[in-house]
Amino acid sequence: MALHRKGQMKLQIFSVGKLSLKPAGILVEEYAQRISHYLPIEIKNFKSMEAMWQAIGGSYHVVLDAAGKTFDSLSFAKWLDGHKIRSTKSLTFMIGPAEGFPQEFKAKADFLLSLSSMTLQHELALVVLMEQIYRACTILKREPYHK
Amino acid sequence: MALHRKGQMKLQIFSVGKLSLKPAGILVEEYAQRISHYLPIEIKNFKSMEAMWQAIGGSYHVVLDAAGKTFDSLSFAKWLDGHKIRSTKSLTFMIGPAEGFPQEFKAKADFLLSLSSMTLQHELALVVLMEQIYRACTILKREPYHK
Repeated sequence: MALHRKGQMKLQIFSVGKLSLKPAGILVEEYAQRISHYLPIEIKNFKSMEAMWQAIGGSYHVVLDAAGKTFDSLSFAKWLDGHKIRSTKSLTFMIGPAEGFPQEFKAKADFLLSLSSMTLQHELALVVLMEQIYRACTILKREPYHK
Repeated sequence: MALHRKGQMKLQIFSVGKLSLKPAGILVEEYAQRISHYLPIEIKNFKSMEAMWQAIGGSYHVVLDAAGKTFDSLSFAKWLDGHKIRSTKSLTFMIGPAEGFPQEFKAKADFLLSLSSMTLQHELALVVLMEQIYRACTILKREPYHK
């Protein structure tokens, strides 16, 4: 785990529902490890959506939704950087259960993010999100991962 | 492996470049197993793009590209079904290396498909594609996987 500066933006990745696709879990761990060299990151799985929403606190919360805003990897990196520049303390990404988030939860989000117009199995959505955050970190540091 | 009817559409998934993300490989196997109950599927990794293109033969070939056509999961299922209805014999999905396909390869494609506007690590693109094909199979059979 890398040492992080005091006041640095913290990432939280919240998911809800049973995690059953074991190899996806291994990939999530792998990317969490890689991301932790750039930003502090916490990954948490909740039993219910209510428990998840109660844990947000004052964090800027981004809800994953197929109909949300789409980015290419470069603009996603810029968007993430924008939050660092504006001193967002904590950025929480929320991944819903298989049937998606109900409308009232989406309406409460600070931001709706779409990884794909396709409906992704929620553990795969988690892996794709982690890989994009890792990719964004390397883009912002001008490291050679993203081609 | 399920028994397949003679003349049934065959799926091929071609990728190129070193496969190094081992848990992604396990997920690919898992979805290949699931898809094989619906359609015959063959997965092949090539050392070079040239070798990959030589293996297409007369197959309808779909090249994965972030800037290609996007679908939601339902319309992707309908698109796949359209190929079955039009008696496409063989449908080949091609996933490029980390740096993507050169323009001349994309120009030769029968179809450009985008899974996401984001650049996905190519083994993750493979997993996402497999999950979408599996999802499409369940949608077309009105099975409860897709919600």
